[in-house]
Amino acid sequence: MPSSTPSPDPQEFRPFLTWQGIIDWAQSHYRERIFSKDERIPTRPGLLYLVRRGAVRIVGSMQAIQTENPPPSETIEKAFLGFVGAGQPFEIVVQSPFSLQAYAHVEETAVIWMYWQELDNWTHLRREVLEIFRYQHQRKQLWLCLLGQRRTIDRLVGFLKLSIEEYGEPSDRGYCLPYPLTHAQIGSAIGATRVTVTRLMGRLRRQGLISIEGENLICWPNKSAI
Amino acid sequence: MPSSTPSPDPQEFRPFLTWQGIIDWAQSHYRERIFSKDERIPTRPGLLYLVRRGAVRIVGSMQAIQTENPPPSETIEKAFLGFVGAGQPFEIVVQSPFSLQAYAHVEETAVIWMYWQELDNWTHLRREVLEIFRYQHQRKQLWLCLLGQRRTIDRLVGFLKLSIEEYGEPSDRGYCLPYPLTHAQIGSAIGATRVTVTRLMGRLRRQGLISIEGENLICWPNKSAI
Repeated sequence: MPSSTPSPDPQEFRPFLTWQGIIDWAQSHYRERIFSKDERIPTRPGLLYLVRRGAVRIVGSMQAIQTENPPPSETIEKAFLGFVGAGQPFEIVVQSPFSLQAYAHVEETAVIWMYWQELDNWTHLRREVLEIFRYQHQRKQLWLCLLGQRRTIDRLVGFLKLSIEEYGEPSDRGYCLPYPLTHAQIGSAIGATRVTVTRLMGRLRRQGLISIEGENLICWPNKSAI
Repeated sequence: MPSSTPSPDPQEFRPFLTWQGIIDWAQSHYRERIFSKDERIPTRPGLLYLVRRGAVRIVGSMQAIQTENPPPSETIEKAFLGFVGAGQPFEIVVQSPFSLQAYAHVEETAVIWMYWQELDNWTHLRREVLEIFRYQHQRKQLWLCLLGQRRTIDRLVGFLKLSIEEYGEPSDRGYCLPYPLTHAQIGSAIGATRVTVTRLMGRLRRQGLISIEGENLICWPNKSAI
């Protein structure tokens, strides 16, 4: 059904005033690439990335410090640091001893990239990108807040609340994360083992605080409690 | 020694192009207040705060989740979430079950506040504030990265590196944090007890990775290793 005013795909639409212009520019300048699920997205510092479709998973690791008892290298842990959904920007800094990486979290994730200077041509976009980083900074502060909790159950519930509130989509079963998250990924985010996360998730399900729907999506049934 | 071009106090000077104008505006509009060490700074969501002098400590807590075994209320933990130095902005969001607070970290900490809409009159400042939040977001990502480490020693060293790199000032003993940080505060930031932090800090001192100078200031003697 051709139309003179193409209606944006809801999955892709975000409140960037100039979003369609950006997509056209990116495609005509070969600045877009499609990634498979779990494929690593090559990044360079100083570049800005925009997720056009799908979702990106940010993970981070830290080189272990040289101390008397260095850990075996295979124990270097990759912490899950959050999602970047469609319409959202991200950037990957390089800062020893830390290492951040971006992965496509779902199939057919489309990513656009540009130099920060190029944003000078898109004043609205620049402002919106910075406002989103301001918002993400607020969210990361809350995330640090929950990681400060000594009890793993509190970190887990805080993490689930924060994630579902930010990325969740309404359904008849409450609010659900739109993509699966493994217990190992949750564990890496909250400093717990996969086994502990599995045990505690079971407890939260029995208590009715969360439910698991469809293809392993975590839901918060009680909307008002988010 | 009077001078027609007042040279800014290095402690106060930051690259805000309009910094002096802001200070004048704030003082003439009664938008500045001085706080004693450890005094809580009253905040409201939707306001932007600028640290004019001194340093602010952001801490966060999370209301424990109602589960089968709720912890006694006195165990609610306040996590240290970072400093805001002179010339830097901060804002405090309200988001249940989280609670963020700001405290003056040193004597005579001066804080200016304004509504976000008022920034429309200070276009340069608005842009700089947003750029700083962008930077702070990057730092918080690294912070999350180090909190994902399973070994406490790695979290501790990562935390010290990150803090000294961001807030540290050069001295003949390397780079030093300009204000003291208690072992309890460090512990709350990295999910460890005060006792553990004290033990590990002792180990790092014996290894020469850190030193303690002057009034209990943590230093990183090897500049190149930051």
